[in-house]
Amino acid sequence: MKCTIIGATGYAAIELIRMIELHPYLEIVSLISDSMTDQDINLLYSFMNENNYSRLAKFSVEHIEEVETDILFLATPSGISMNYVKQLGNWKGTVIDLSGDLRLEKTLYEKWYGHEGIDRLIQRKATYGLTEWKRDQIKQSRLIANPGCYATAILLGLLPLLAEEMIDPAQIIVHASSGLSGAGKTLTEQTHHVRSNENVRLYKMNRHQHIPEIESIAEDITGQKIMISLATYLVPLNRGIMATMTLQPLVEKTEAAWRAWFSEKYENEPFIRIGQAEPEIKSAAGSNYCDLSVYVDPRTGRLTVVSVIDNMQKGAAGQAIQNANVVCGYPETSGLTQQPFFI
Amino acid sequence: MKCTIIGATGYAAIELIRMIELHPYLEIVSLISDSMTDQDINLLYSFMNENNYSRLAKFSVEHIEEVETDILFLATPSGISMNYVKQLGNWKGTVIDLSGDLRLEKTLYEKWYGHEGIDRLIQRKATYGLTEWKRDQIKQSRLIANPGCYATAILLGLLPLLAEEMIDPAQIIVHASSGLSGAGKTLTEQTHHVRSNENVRLYKMNRHQHIPEIESIAEDITGQKIMISLATYLVPLNRGIMATMTLQPLVEKTEAAWRAWFSEKYENEPFIRIGQAEPEIKSAAGSNYCDLSVYVDPRTGRLTVVSVIDNMQKGAAGQAIQNANVVCGYPETSGLTQQPFFI
Amino acid sequence: MKCTIIGATGYAAIELIRMIELHPYLEIVSLISDSMTDQDINLLYSFMNENNYSRLAKFSVEHIEEVETDILFLATPSGISMNYVKQLGNWKGTVIDLSGDLRLEKTLYEKWYGHEGIDRLIQRKATYGLTEWKRDQIKQSRLIANPGCYATAILLGLLPLLAEEMIDPAQIIVHASSGLSGAGKTLTEQTHHVRSNENVRLYKMNRHQHIPEIESIAEDITGQKIMISLATYLVPLNRGIMATMTLQPLVEKTEAAWRAWFSEKYENEPFIRIGQAEPEIKSAAGSNYCDLSVYVDPRTGRLTVVSVIDNMQKGAAGQAIQNANVVCGYPETSGLTQQPFFI
Amino acid sequence: MKCTIIGATGYAAIELIRMIELHPYLEIVSLISDSMTDQDINLLYSFMNENNYSRLAKFSVEHIEEVETDILFLATPSGISMNYVKQLGNWKGTVIDLSGDLRLEKTLYEKWYGHEGIDRLIQRKATYGLTEWKRDQIKQSRLIANPGCYATAILLGLLPLLAEEMIDPAQIIVHASSGLSGAGKTLTEQTHHVRSNENVRLYKMNRHQHIPEIESIAEDITGQKIMISLATYLVPLNRGIMATMTLQPLVEKTEAAWRAWFSEKYENEPFIRIGQAEPEIKSAAGSNYCDLSVYVDPRTGRLTVVSVIDNMQKGAAGQAIQNANVVCGYPETSGLTQQPFFI
Repeated sequence: MKCTIIGATGYAAIELIRMIELHPYLEIVSLISDSMTDQDINLLYSFMNENNYSRLAKFSVEHIEEVETDILFLATPSGISMNYVKQLGNWKGTVIDLSGDLRLEKTLYEKWYGHEGIDRLIQRKATYGLTEWKRDQIKQSRLIANPGCYATAILLGLLPLLAEEMIDPAQIIVHASSGLSGAGKTLTEQTHHVRSNENVRLYKMNRHQHIPEIESIAEDITGQKIMISLATYLVPLNRGIMATMTLQPLVEKTEAAWRAWFSEKYENEPFIRIGQAEPEIKSAAGSNYCDLSVYVDPRTGRLTVVSVIDNMQKGAAGQAIQNANVVCGYPETSGLTQQPFFI
Repeated sequence: MKCTIIGATGYAAIELIRMIELHPYLEIVSLISDSMTDQDINLLYSFMNENNYSRLAKFSVEHIEEVETDILFLATPSGISMNYVKQLGNWKGTVIDLSGDLRLEKTLYEKWYGHEGIDRLIQRKATYGLTEWKRDQIKQSRLIANPGCYATAILLGLLPLLAEEMIDPAQIIVHASSGLSGAGKTLTEQTHHVRSNENVRLYKMNRHQHIPEIESIAEDITGQKIMISLATYLVPLNRGIMATMTLQPLVEKTEAAWRAWFSEKYENEPFIRIGQAEPEIKSAAGSNYCDLSVYVDPRTGRLTVVSVIDNMQKGAAGQAIQNANVVCGYPETSGLTQQPFFI
Repeated sequence: MKCTIIGATGYAAIELIRMIELHPYLEIVSLISDSMTDQDINLLYSFMNENNYSRLAKFSVEHIEEVETDILFLATPSGISMNYVKQLGNWKGTVIDLSGDLRLEKTLYEKWYGHEGIDRLIQRKATYGLTEWKRDQIKQSRLIANPGCYATAILLGLLPLLAEEMIDPAQIIVHASSGLSGAGKTLTEQTHHVRSNENVRLYKMNRHQHIPEIESIAEDITGQKIMISLATYLVPLNRGIMATMTLQPLVEKTEAAWRAWFSEKYENEPFIRIGQAEPEIKSAAGSNYCDLSVYVDPRTGRLTVVSVIDNMQKGAAGQAIQNANVVCGYPETSGLTQQPFFI
Repeated sequence: MKCTIIGATGYAAIELIRMIELHPYLEIVSLISDSMTDQDINLLYSFMNENNYSRLAKFSVEHIEEVETDILFLATPSGISMNYVKQLGNWKGTVIDLSGDLRLEKTLYEKWYGHEGIDRLIQRKATYGLTEWKRDQIKQSRLIANPGCYATAILLGLLPLLAEEMIDPAQIIVHASSGLSGAGKTLTEQTHHVRSNENVRLYKMNRHQHIPEIESIAEDITGQKIMISLATYLVPLNRGIMATMTLQPLVEKTEAAWRAWFSEKYENEPFIRIGQAEPEIKSAAGSNYCDLSVYVDPRTGRLTVVSVIDNMQKGAAGQAIQNANVVCGYPETSGLTQQPFFI
């Protein structure tokens, strides 16, 4: 299938390009950047090769159609994506939006994002692209809201527990650390190497926009109303998220039994692995895996679930391609079989 | 006063040396290393200068006395320190032990450390050296159990709240990240740069030996029995700890009111600062400060207290010197006025 | 073709596994580790999947044959590889040795490596696997000495110049920085995160074993006797080498003309790119590319050639696979088309 | 003495503040920032304490005099410092300028900096503040051009050799790596963590403005005309410079003899150390030391001198304070006795 990427100079786009170039069935036909139209992306990024799509195009529905786009990836920030979605109108292809613009109901969106949301009717047409939990709807959908990075990591850990009422929905405390690519390409004091290096920073405490995403999707999928505490940290590395969920189980099981339980829940999922050892970001970084670990504290009775993903892959571009595979009817792992970097 | 350091090639000792060399009233008279006796420490560590104490000595009570030691720092690991304490017998000077060997009651120690503890009578003589909370006892003590790094960060945040029964003692969930120096100098797969770099690792989940230290000291000081959940992480940087405590307050206050409350509790403490901004390790790394931040989540009602220290300073060598200052009757900030590195 | 890897727990092997799993025509049939026989590699490395070759096998010629190995990768250290080569005797398959054991003539080897070299007759059978310069011989060879990482980076920059007598062979000064994976998996003080992080270390000054490799291969290929100065540095990152060669040109050309000249020399080489911008390790890390940059200093008349590779790919596993492709007659880029990580 | 710092929010100023607060005889009376006048510096930098000089002042000669400034540090960028110097006119105090504005003769300055230089008469009044080589002049001077970071590291290695005609002045090839703080606080693509991390970048090849500084100072001090090749690299760490000088000696000496020779040349210099071991940035980072190492290659006959400094200390703020000590007649090491961080 033919892919076009809008917002082609941002990190998510860079990762999409890197992965689609390895994909057996997808190909890039155009890269769009409205701020850098007509520039060559390989001059901006020394590692990129010159090729037939390296000159950045300007967005128009005509252009999208002219290059025969089947799948359009919006790798644009929240607040920007919605403008493209609106302009696309009745365009026939599939849109996969990596921003937050289609993930939340309008009122909730406006409360947490602080600016106007997209029209309710359009947002309702969008399918939340958490592949493992929405596969059937994604297959039918032509407008996909690719999940947020923290939301992906956290929901994959919480949803099986909520779906079977295994935990107290009012006692969910999450601490999640992300590499600097999660902060995006924008230059800020916090992303200057001298500041971020040898540092950990707690940011958006109680205010992260993935909080309502996690809560509303959890309710949508499991019917359970939850209210989470979320502390998010910038840690000095490029890729990866580790999310630790401290939970109050409603049933008693040993650590081994919980592990077996999770293994069973995700038995046929190619990208979800239940780990034995101490969890580390390195087990997933560079791959589309979500690695889940489980702990039970015999003293407090609490259950801890740790979820590790690569924020650029399962948390962004990887899951977007996984969704494209579902939409296109390709094997779901197509183009996504690379192992973690480790080194 | 004259200082001798045992275990002189480890990280805590290196930091003690660096700081005592800047101290106006303390001086080093001997460095002891039983594994590297007679070697020159400046050949091991390129940055160190040759001087009259750079040749590593062998431990004996006679040697300690011969060099006229007033204060003996044990910068040796848990399980090793106790051997020196035993051999010191009735030596007249002050011992400040940076290991865990004197911090816990024998039964508790043996349960969490997995090896035999020191004699009960000796352990009971030791004062827990959390300076801000034990100043008067430290002043009288000749055997000081310098607190653990995580324990220092966490107790400084919890104790005021527990002392005034401001939080539910059964609802204390702590996530704490530490730089690699916290893992010590021993070579392990986890401290090899290629493994630790670009990684975050959750380790000793529910099993960290600072859990009983925090719980027993909290009870000792505040009379409240607590049981905490503690998740500890290695993050890819050299120094610093950030500990985030998610708590259930028993009284209702705004964020600003909590901040004012903490400011009042620690009003006269030179090393405790109540921060306004987003907490970051960089605000304390390189200094003896403990920076506390406070958040209230209006949605969940939870109170979050974040404590940042330098694990090598307030979490080890800095607090040891602070305790030495108390013992010697020096101004408590002597030799500890350096600001964080920042860069 | 069926591949077996000896020394399967080291970094080069890990990278070979990661890449062969993505390769369209190669497959792994056995992983061998004589020190960890019968253990599961996925228990050592959390990121690896369990599969039919994850249990580590013991080396024997019978085993190699039993699993129908076509290509045997020796990912073992120098001094170890030679033992396997000897034991293989007349085994019919292709051996690609990633160590230094087959690269140097015996006397030279023993002088620089400090231990006994392999038998002269065996060493002479080996082809030096710098693919771009030895393609025809590699095609015919069943014993390939895969080049060293620094040697690859430096030779790819020097050889065109030497072959056409463009530079003074007595005036070659090279400074080359490598990430920590270049130091291997062995635990040493220098690879402990606390030491290597926030550090640069100059090591093996004038003594690096890649010096004779570069000099003898340059003479072998171009007929020119050269004598280089080489300073090698460990820099705090995981992958990548940047080698800067300061040279005295024998002809006068502008920077643009030199660039054009290099472009022409490497015109048909899929993995060699002549860059425009400031060179950076990130342009190649994660890929099999060698990126060359050229500078002329109008003041001093010196020519500077900068060569950037990923030490794990073009400097080790990537080039090994490139050589396997040549031996097998596959398109040379098979399994090697991944772009640099960038993030 | 009373110190005022202009450009108080930049890195050099931050380091000056950190160090002057530890200095026994210097004190800060005012921090000036024309771009952030009236803001509190402790709100910008979480680690700073509130105190009587934390509110940023606006520059005027009246203000400088009103706060009774003895020493004025210009921690402003090149092109900006000169404006303050001009406005200061006949102000009676001592000015120490950390920028490049006073280091070069006007024509040379304009050629390499690309903008107008300061008036010749003013520039000629300035003393180049390389303390070890200009101590007597500094003592008499009221206008000091504090040396550049690369220039400091390189000149301290070259000057003894040039002064005694020990090396070929036409054969000086320098490779120098700097941490990110050397790139300053300005936000750029190259200082974004995701780009700089896991990267090495060669920048300003043959064009670095420290080239003419090194050459003209070397001629001024030793009478020898030199022309150097300089390659400068950004390496992913915060502080430190390692400069490696590949040289052609005119006399023959063993490595040990060269080391002894350097030791003798710098015999009474408190901040210059001649190292034995492999040089590393960590031996100096955090201190005002310059650590020199020497190598002789018996094969090529070349001499290699490696110079390591902390770019923020001996390469900027530390040397500025060293110069202030000289001007004030304090012991030269006052406030500069801290050892390297190491951890």
